[in-house]
Amino acid sequence: MTTAAVLATGTELTRGELVNTNATWLAESLTSRGFDVVELATVGDDAAEIRATLERLSRKARVIVCTGGLGPTTDDLTTAVVAELLGVALVRDAASYETLRARLARFGRAVSDSNAKQTDFPENATILPNERGTAPGFAVELGSALACFMPGVPSEMTHMFEAYVLPLLEPIERAARHQVRLRCVGLPESEVNDRLAGIEATHGVVIGYRASMSELEVKVLAGGTSFDDARARAEAAAVEVRARLGTNVYGEGTTSFPAVLVELLAARGATLALAESCTGGLGAELVTRVPGSSRVFVGGVVAYSNDVKVALLGVDRALIDAHGAVSEEVARAMAEGSRRATGATYGLAFTGIAGPGGGSDEKPVGLVHMALASAGGTAVDRRVFPGTRDEIRRRAVYWGFGLLRRSLLTTA
Amino acid sequence: MTTAAVLATGTELTRGELVNTNATWLAESLTSRGFDVVELATVGDDAAEIRATLERLSRKARVIVCTGGLGPTTDDLTTAVVAELLGVALVRDAASYETLRARLARFGRAVSDSNAKQTDFPENATILPNERGTAPGFAVELGSALACFMPGVPSEMTHMFEAYVLPLLEPIERAARHQVRLRCVGLPESEVNDRLAGIEATHGVVIGYRASMSELEVKVLAGGTSFDDARARAEAAAVEVRARLGTNVYGEGTTSFPAVLVELLAARGATLALAESCTGGLGAELVTRVPGSSRVFVGGVVAYSNDVKVALLGVDRALIDAHGAVSEEVARAMAEGSRRATGATYGLAFTGIAGPGGGSDEKPVGLVHMALASAGGTAVDRRVFPGTRDEIRRRAVYWGFGLLRRSLLTTA
Repeated sequence: MTTAAVLATGTELTRGELVNTNATWLAESLTSRGFDVVELATVGDDAAEIRATLERLSRKARVIVCTGGLGPTTDDLTTAVVAELLGVALVRDAASYETLRARLARFGRAVSDSNAKQTDFPENATILPNERGTAPGFAVELGSALACFMPGVPSEMTHMFEAYVLPLLEPIERAARHQVRLRCVGLPESEVNDRLAGIEATHGVVIGYRASMSELEVKVLAGGTSFDDARARAEAAAVEVRARLGTNVYGEGTTSFPAVLVELLAARGATLALAESCTGGLGAELVTRVPGSSRVFVGGVVAYSNDVKVALLGVDRALIDAHGAVSEEVARAMAEGSRRATGATYGLAFTGIAGPGGGSDEKPVGLVHMALASAGGTAVDRRVFPGTRDEIRRRAVYWGFGLLRRSLLTTA
Repeated sequence: MTTAAVLATGTELTRGELVNTNATWLAESLTSRGFDVVELATVGDDAAEIRATLERLSRKARVIVCTGGLGPTTDDLTTAVVAELLGVALVRDAASYETLRARLARFGRAVSDSNAKQTDFPENATILPNERGTAPGFAVELGSALACFMPGVPSEMTHMFEAYVLPLLEPIERAARHQVRLRCVGLPESEVNDRLAGIEATHGVVIGYRASMSELEVKVLAGGTSFDDARARAEAAAVEVRARLGTNVYGEGTTSFPAVLVELLAARGATLALAESCTGGLGAELVTRVPGSSRVFVGGVVAYSNDVKVALLGVDRALIDAHGAVSEEVARAMAEGSRRATGATYGLAFTGIAGPGGGSDEKPVGLVHMALASAGGTAVDRRVFPGTRDEIRRRAVYWGFGLLRRSLLTTA
């Protein structure tokens, strides 16, 4: 076990003004590269606290990764604390100073004393360039620990970690690990968990989950005798995960479900129109969030009122009167109407009760009727989704997108 | 200074599988109630680590609030560690057991041994009922610290903290503090910061910011000789903040900008239709996320393709050919078309270039034309928004909502 710890400094963190996403990002990066992260610590801008925590962590971790406290203001104390801890002087780094001077000059600014402070480092520290901001980082040996100090701004920190910290970690002996990330929709986390029962034991892997919106990331982490061996184990287990989850797995890595849908539509030369009542534009928003979605998405109607369903989608008012706006019949008419109005290959419609009010015994909150119209006819589906208003809307959209994806996959 | 510390346990946290939003929430809750939070610690499901961390924190904090490790599985170790640390036995609590039995019975389940374990507590602990889940929490004295243990599920934890932990903290002497939260739109954080310069010194308050989407929360935290004094100071400073930010402040507390718009429309007896091109349904999604928005929102058209602009909004194709889809003329025609098609009081339209592709020197990425049509005529606006595709869309929607709000405020 090669241990690592993460330290974040900043009173904005201990006051609860900012969620510490840096620590999570670093913990995952270190874990997936074979380190065992034993502690994530956060303390305020307090020299004594920072010093005591660094001393403590240096006794239990082979690697310490720190964020924050490198800025220009008087509450940025980390660099001075580290120099004091090492018993060395702070020395200005000429190259860092020149980079900073040139950077500020581009914005027509001179280097102030407080800016210049950001180019002072403990003597003999390894400097970590900051290509996204003004404060470089640095690395030193603290006892038997390698301690790396980076700014707290996430975009600066993640770039610096990948470009300059990872190479420093490379020579450190540690567990060989490899992680595969599969992306999944259409199943609740508990069912995915049940379906994957036994894989951890059989393949000697750890399976983790991260739910985000209606997508679930399934992470398969394997150890091995070498990095190649770990990769082979993770990939073998991933094959089994894919087999058990079937088409619910829609991709690998970080791709989103709407992005996969857009690609599928483009590959088929198909276009899409949406007719949304209860989902209120969420479906359109998720599709158009994908760059290049204009290739396949022609548009949609947010038919929140019945008048708009009639006026813009050509829904027969008698149908609404007879069955109610939340009904299979109206969903069908909306989907077909959106296709007719736009000429799209597919028309996908949602009508339901997102709550919190408006439910009844017959039509409870969460009930959503969906319809998918195409040249071959119109398919309908009806579901009662659990959750809050926002969750119901999101689940409905993803479920409807799932209907579209299945139709696209079977019409190759 | 009355110190507090937060400890989160769970290997899902040290592996970076989950962002620790609990710690941030607790840090803010404790800070706003007069505690000085000196450390946020996170360790894995490891008895020795949990024990060492609790011992350490009990020497520096008057209050320790812990989350996680109270579940039914073998890696839930916290309760046993605390009993060992105190040198007391684990004792089953009959009332908690009965509550658990009744709860599981409602789902047709019996109490398993691992469930039952959740009703064992260190002898003499104060039990904290869990009204949202199966694992109760508990509180004990660890040396001179009051240590409170709660489950890690956020909805269970926040409820337990407010209902059962806060009353235990009540008798602890601490700084008198009061916080006012103002919600603001239409100004970047840096400009808000500049406009509020000097208020901290003059009023003896601390001003914090939290940006979320395109809304900015401005937090005014004041200390005082008593809670009433602190409240008076915070409120006096808040009056000054409001004066400097003008109508950019749209509310207090946690209300959202779209919710305020919906209320304003309802108060005026007005209705809204949207015509969205580059914003792709985001405007409709944000409005319909507000429960009860159907009172004022009739619907909209996501006119992503030019054909849909013509077919559903009645935009003259010659206008598109002459000026391009991203133009003041087309924005105006879209807004007026959405009003005509739906009969709404207001029609609000967006057409622009969200990127990342599609920009030119004349019409760069970020350019958005907006138009607001009403019986009194059509107002237009043109902006170039910075940021990513998602940020440009979001900024455009909020800017357009700002136009609508100003119109509503001036037509009282």
